Amino acid sequence: MKIAVLGTGMVGDTIGSKLIELGHTVMMGSRTRGSEKAKTFVEKHNGKATSGTFADAAAFGDIIFNCTAGVASLEALKMAGENNLREKIIVDIANPLDFSKGIPPSLAMCNTNSLSEEIQKAFPHSKVVKALNTMWCGLMVNPGMINGGDHSTFVSGNDPGAKDEVKQILKSFGWAEDNILDLGDITTARGTEMYLPIWLSIYGATNNGAFNIKIVS
Amino acid sequence: MKIAVLGTGMVGDTIGSKLIELGHTVMMGSRTRGSEKAKTFVEKHNGKATSGTFADAAAFGDIIFNCTAGVASLEALKMAGENNLREKIIVDIANPLDFSKGIPPSLAMCNTNSLSEEIQKAFPHSKVVKALNTMWCGLMVNPGMINGGDHSTFVSGNDPGAKDEVKQILKSFGWAEDNILDLGDITTARGTEMYLPIWLSIYGATNNGAFNIKIVS
Repeated sequence: MKIAVLGTGMVGDTIGSKLIELGHTVMMGSRTRGSEKAKTFVEKHNGKATSGTFADAAAFGDIIFNCTAGVASLEALKMAGENNLREKIIVDIANPLDFSKGIPPSLAMCNTNSLSEEIQKAFPHSKVVKALNTMWCGLMVNPGMINGGDHSTFVSGNDPGAKDEVKQILKSFGWAEDNILDLGDITTARGTEMYLPIWLSIYGATNNGAFNIKIVS
Repeated sequence: MKIAVLGTGMVGDTIGSKLIELGHTVMMGSRTRGSEKAKTFVEKHNGKATSGTFADAAAFGDIIFNCTAGVASLEALKMAGENNLREKIIVDIANPLDFSKGIPPSLAMCNTNSLSEEIQKAFPHSKVVKALNTMWCGLMVNPGMINGGDHSTFVSGNDPGAKDEVKQILKSFGWAEDNILDLGDITTARGTEMYLPIWLSIYGATNNGAFNIKIVS
């Protein structure tokens, strides 16, 4: 599949590298053409990846991974362009963490709103699926790293078909079907985004980011 | 130990009944003396419990469990009276869920604040410990009901000694030491309160409230 990865940070690099490993063709998008980090990414994957602006990448991809910083995601997607995103799935991995007042960050939006809902509102002809935003990126693409791969991940979105496609990608990352919980429509992204403060507290208390939660009943 | 349970709802009844089972003496506090629910609770435990106003109960207890509805907790504690709460541990189990705009509820405060912080600010001479607010009350006092008791619970608070006392109570409820994670000071209650939206979504998606999360790494 042709996949756009928007964002050149650790999350974009991790997701993009895994997608390439799985045989997909990836274009990494950044604010400006010729980003150093995107260039490094392309070189690392000699020939199996390309890079360009957010708009270049969105035009290229059949599916778009939003791996930009949450507080910059709406602007990045606007730069990607509504027409380039039209009818496509946007997998939103970002969290609207606001570090402007220091550590720990607050959420730039929460409670009765979420980043994913704002993206869905701004791009009504795209299919936003919130996914993977509840853990360190190393685990997103390698759940087997801990607890034999037996822990939980979530999807939220308004389009059942789009959620099914994202679930297939998650399964290709190593997630067991039973551990992928469909929470419901895109408003349930509020829950996974508002999970970030407890995630940060657990990380702070344990000094280990390579953890996740498993739902037990 | 003499323990005050503020609140006559399902949470207060569950916590109070478990404390009595463990040999503690419980006074259930409510807004007005002679609450029907408190009377039923006292009758059920023939002679091993008493009831009174919030102030009666707080004066009686060496330790106070706040089991009132989160949006009413500050007022209930003010009725309990600062002097009756002075130097005592307040175990805050409540979540500031606001149902005034329907289902799902929003949080009356979150992100850069929490109910527990508001309680600590209002009662600076009490020792607020957030605990047990991340699950259905049946599990709070009977973790062994699911997954062999192997799942996670959290404490937040500024006073290490108070947190240790609360941990002892949690252990007497059946919680394994290793599954009680001290998240840090009272500001970390933001995380456990903001966990409620994902809790509600998981409950909605699975139709089962008798679940919890286990941290795996």
